[in-house]
Amino acid sequence: MTKYNMYNKKIYLDNAATTPTDPEVLKAMLPYFSEKFGNPMSIHSFGQEASEAINKARKQVADFLNCNPEEIIFTSGATESNNLAIKGIIKKYFYLSKDSNLSASGKPHIVTTAFEHHCVLETIKFLEKSGQAEITYLPVYEEGIVKLEDVKNALRPNTILVSIMYVNNEIGTVQPIEEIGKLIKSTNDKISFHTDATQAVNYFNCDVEKLNVDMLSFSGHKIYGPKGVGVLYIKKGTPISRIQDGGEQEFGLRAGTHNVPGIVGLGAAIAEIKNQKSKIKNIVSLRDYLINRVLKEIPDSYLNGSKEKRSPNNINFRFDNVEGESLIMSLDMEGIAASTGSACSSNTLEPSHVLLSLGLKPEQCHGSLRLSLGKDTTREEVNYTIDKLKEAVERLRSISGKVLEEFN
Amino acid sequence: MTKYNMYNKKIYLDNAATTPTDPEVLKAMLPYFSEKFGNPMSIHSFGQEASEAINKARKQVADFLNCNPEEIIFTSGATESNNLAIKGIIKKYFYLSKDSNLSASGKPHIVTTAFEHHCVLETIKFLEKSGQAEITYLPVYEEGIVKLEDVKNALRPNTILVSIMYVNNEIGTVQPIEEIGKLIKSTNDKISFHTDATQAVNYFNCDVEKLNVDMLSFSGHKIYGPKGVGVLYIKKGTPISRIQDGGEQEFGLRAGTHNVPGIVGLGAAIAEIKNQKSKIKNIVSLRDYLINRVLKEIPDSYLNGSKEKRSPNNINFRFDNVEGESLIMSLDMEGIAASTGSACSSNTLEPSHVLLSLGLKPEQCHGSLRLSLGKDTTREEVNYTIDKLKEAVERLRSISGKVLEEFN
Repeated sequence: MTKYNMYNKKIYLDNAATTPTDPEVLKAMLPYFSEKFGNPMSIHSFGQEASEAINKARKQVADFLNCNPEEIIFTSGATESNNLAIKGIIKKYFYLSKDSNLSASGKPHIVTTAFEHHCVLETIKFLEKSGQAEITYLPVYEEGIVKLEDVKNALRPNTILVSIMYVNNEIGTVQPIEEIGKLIKSTNDKISFHTDATQAVNYFNCDVEKLNVDMLSFSGHKIYGPKGVGVLYIKKGTPISRIQDGGEQEFGLRAGTHNVPGIVGLGAAIAEIKNQKSKIKNIVSLRDYLINRVLKEIPDSYLNGSKEKRSPNNINFRFDNVEGESLIMSLDMEGIAASTGSACSSNTLEPSHVLLSLGLKPEQCHGSLRLSLGKDTTREEVNYTIDKLKEAVERLRSISGKVLEEFN
Repeated sequence: MTKYNMYNKKIYLDNAATTPTDPEVLKAMLPYFSEKFGNPMSIHSFGQEASEAINKARKQVADFLNCNPEEIIFTSGATESNNLAIKGIIKKYFYLSKDSNLSASGKPHIVTTAFEHHCVLETIKFLEKSGQAEITYLPVYEEGIVKLEDVKNALRPNTILVSIMYVNNEIGTVQPIEEIGKLIKSTNDKISFHTDATQAVNYFNCDVEKLNVDMLSFSGHKIYGPKGVGVLYIKKGTPISRIQDGGEQEFGLRAGTHNVPGIVGLGAAIAEIKNQKSKIKNIVSLRDYLINRVLKEIPDSYLNGSKEKRSPNNINFRFDNVEGESLIMSLDMEGIAASTGSACSSNTLEPSHVLLSLGLKPEQCHGSLRLSLGKDTTREEVNYTIDKLKEAVERLRSISGKVLEEFN
């Protein structure tokens, strides 16, 4: 049983896994369940009402990304968006090459990084395994940052897609998307540049023109919007095919009845982000306070990934001789929700591919702890967490010490 | 502007396009937005709470379909479910054949009908065009019903999938799924049998054992549940691969963060269906009353598809010398929501492929009107609709008559 903490409420420090739907966002969604429930594709007034609602949300997202509403495709989440971006480009390429015998020029080539989210990495690995594309996986080094020079050297005449995440979901390191975009476009403007911005939208500039990206993905539930809805921005003229076949929804690029309340919620959530800018400074200061105290007060503790080029809300520690999972469970008993890394791969016993990509050894990866702050995280919660974390690390180390003694 | 009808409220007769979320269903969903908002893949208590909620919904669906909870895959809707069922079988086939040189036995063969929903038909046509499969499109004849004999004759040694919808979305005709399943299984039990049951779940027995199906799809928003969530039942042992890559959600068959409130809502909606059985008799009686009065009172009016083997809630008329779209708009002005056919193809000017498959001429298809009743449709609403329909058909015919006169 979860013990409640001293505030008699739970402390949620897993905002990189998912965020609560903001009550104002939920309020905006509510009328679209049982009252304004039409199918936006219907031509009668119920349909028109729903259609207007998704057009409004489309405009809200377009305003945030500085693009045209017609460049916004609503999906079921970032996983679908990333699948669509990558597979859609390859699918279109094969259509085009069928028509023009382009296929003679060889397999298409994709550049990505070694530490993308699984929904990008597994999609790309599927294309590689099935012989549809050649892949270059860029290194990210100890800091967890891609080097521009590596991107430059990776580009080939048959490169058709570069997909690099904006902010890493486990360690929060920020990639130089704007500079990479500039580099790609000045080398070969036929290459499509995609970024998974799921962890970036809350805190970073997502102006797609400034970033020089052709495609950008994110989901509603990481920005205090609902689960089950996401966005893929697709710059006009990008050579892409739909991957979910059916009706003509979303400009023919994504079949399936619109999730109207979800889309309305995503629009409301994104419109709310500009009002949260003032909170970022506070989150950064809590993050740095937590990092500094833990590194100082807990022996043999380390921060994974760059300290400076890091998302305001992300902390990823590792502790020698501590199992991350045991730590999570100890904290959970004290009412603190944290994680070892990506929720999507919590079921596997594999060491994190993100931490491995930093050059860590498998045993080092197993001692990791991700604390991802939220817009409402307080200093009291942080202090309580530090106390409980110290206790837990100490206790777990003393247990594993005893086990080792008995073994010897 | 929509004029409100005599009841000062709108009459919704487009329940085949989408249904309102039942207030009780919405109530069940609400805690999962802002309070119990965890990611079910997280190991802490927020995650466990969410995980328990989707397990409950999985059980509710499994109970309804008479299968194991592990055979239920939650998706973003029926379109995704149908894409997964069909493409997933083909994808797995190519994996398997790569390993065992099965590919020497030739292209896989799929059997379907000419009047499936676009999300089945376009998926299958994509496989056909890209050279991944050979397809047999079964005729459905004037009644809109597949013949068992045709299914039997279509099966080949390389047939790996049969996909036939349970209830047609435009004309509501019911296919003999149980008998088709029996026939397929007795011919070659290696063939996977899939049915799109989106329009069937409210009214027909969906016991997957009884039906002899290996896969069955449907969505939440047609059963008074939310939009943005659907189900694919996959019988244990069915040779299928996931098509959306990423994390290990849904037994590795569908990556992407769970739409927890949506899944909870779908579970609640399906649990509610058994309580609605008593309403079916009333819906059937309203349907027949409406059909009989219209056919009797409006000259040159016809019912599309079988009158007997028909969903309780579906009516699909055609009227000589009347444009369906004009009729929809006339009814909408009187506060009545109806449709010409599928909402998903409302943007196209193509004649309905469903009506063409009945042997109708293109000009006959353009005079069609679908009225799909709901669980709360009343006799007063039906009477009002008949009156307004008569007026509208008469007026539209007199206009087109005048236009013809002026032309002559």
